[in-house]
Amino acid sequence: MNKLKFNSKGLLTGVAQDIDSRQVLMVAMMNAQAVSLTLETGLAHFWSRSREKLWLKGETSGNVLDVKTVKVDCDGDVLLLLVKPRGPACHTGKTSCFFSELDNNYVE
Amino acid sequence: MNKLKFNSKGLLTGVAQDIDSRQVLMVAMMNAQAVSLTLETGLAHFWSRSREKLWLKGETSGNVLDVKTVKVDCDGDVLLLLVKPRGPACHTGKTSCFFSELDNNYVE
Repeated sequence: MNKLKFNSKGLLTGVAQDIDSRQVLMVAMMNAQAVSLTLETGLAHFWSRSREKLWLKGETSGNVLDVKTVKVDCDGDVLLLLVKPRGPACHTGKTSCFFSELDNNYVE
Repeated sequence: MNKLKFNSKGLLTGVAQDIDSRQVLMVAMMNAQAVSLTLETGLAHFWSRSREKLWLKGETSGNVLDVKTVKVDCDGDVLLLLVKPRGPACHTGKTSCFFSELDNNYVE
């Protein structure tokens, strides 16, 4: 896979954004296989660092992300997936994983 | 700094999104100092892995990012900076670093 810059662990960062609401839904890592499968199937795949396995987002919940367009950043190490989510993207049941504001609980 | 999950290199991922247009502008790494300075100054700071130094985005170009809100994801290892950019966010002069579609040039 040319031009994409995977890090020393063979991973790059994937950002999923709702193509309609423009809400940023989640950020996760992707290896080359996750990128290939995402392009082939049209469903977002990631690499789970905690489970050390390839992961079809929504595999168990059914809340897959239909990928409409994939953009790559200027240095080739981040992908922006523009998606239509079939349900809440976050495992907590929220639409987006970014539901908390960074406040003093985090930074004190 | 509690609850934020920095990786083994002391970094987490920062995503900058235009608070008005909702366009995702850039993704870069942040260390604890970059997070603190971003909150203290209201201007986005990152950690440059290539230059191995703290980096005020727009330091030389003047295209700083005024940070209006910071959100944190459900597992505490990604920050979403909602910003008003004072100019193009990308060093190429484009509004966003995500100006290319992932096509066969990348994946063949």
